[in-house]
Amino acid sequence: MNETNRRTFLTATAALCAGTVTAAGPFPVAGKKYPVVHHVFFWLKNAGNETDRKKLIEGVKTLKAIDTVGELHVGVVASTEKRDVVDNSWDVSELIFFKDLAAQAAYQVHPVHQAFIKNYGHLWSKVIVYDATEV
Amino acid sequence: MNETNRRTFLTATAALCAGTVTAAGPFPVAGKKYPVVHHVFFWLKNAGNETDRKKLIEGVKTLKAIDTVGELHVGVVASTEKRDVVDNSWDVSELIFFKDLAAQAAYQVHPVHQAFIKNYGHLWSKVIVYDATEV
Repeated sequence: MNETNRRTFLTATAALCAGTVTAAGPFPVAGKKYPVVHHVFFWLKNAGNETDRKKLIEGVKTLKAIDTVGELHVGVVASTEKRDVVDNSWDVSELIFFKDLAAQAAYQVHPVHQAFIKNYGHLWSKVIVYDATEV
Repeated sequence: MNETNRRTFLTATAALCAGTVTAAGPFPVAGKKYPVVHHVFFWLKNAGNETDRKKLIEGVKTLKAIDTVGELHVGVVASTEKRDVVDNSWDVSELIFFKDLAAQAAYQVHPVHQAFIKNYGHLWSKVIVYDATEV
């Protein structure tokens, strides 16, 4: 590669990579883009029931269709060490990152969220919500 | 650029970009790379005390020095709508993503985590931990 081609190569490489670098952003990604954290824990009426758990997981996953949802993570209890401070009595968790409080408020009244409550609300007996803002 | 240089360019570009693409991954980033979610809520002994809250936030942020911590998000209560299901009685939250359960176990016994408990443990009166695995 001669000098001219080397320059062309470097410029073109930078341009090609630029989009990816911007999309990735600095670590941590979610914290920079989505500082509002909404973590919901569900306790099933039929605690530990596998069919109901699967159905609720399916329901929580419908929430990613909401345009103000930045990131959605659906979880079940992890097999970490049992300790007094660890609450492992819940069945399904829903962790959503929003870009701001307005996005979270819009999510609450969104038809897809309302449909989720209507169609899957009979499955749970208890819900705890934690809303945090990144500092 | 002739054909030989074009091939060189494309190969080298792919190699240069590869690391970035792997690091970024598809959306959602954290969910793909770090499926283990560790969410800790702290209640201060001096509930709502601003000095103690800042000190604890400083302490939680030391945890990002632990090499198995994939992503760390430190939070305070968000100003979302007050509802019966929302627990807003806590003071500081620590949300960590790990790549697997071994990374979480290594974190628990890491000297930086042990130092955090030793140096900041006097600040809190209650802790609740939720450990989830992404599904």
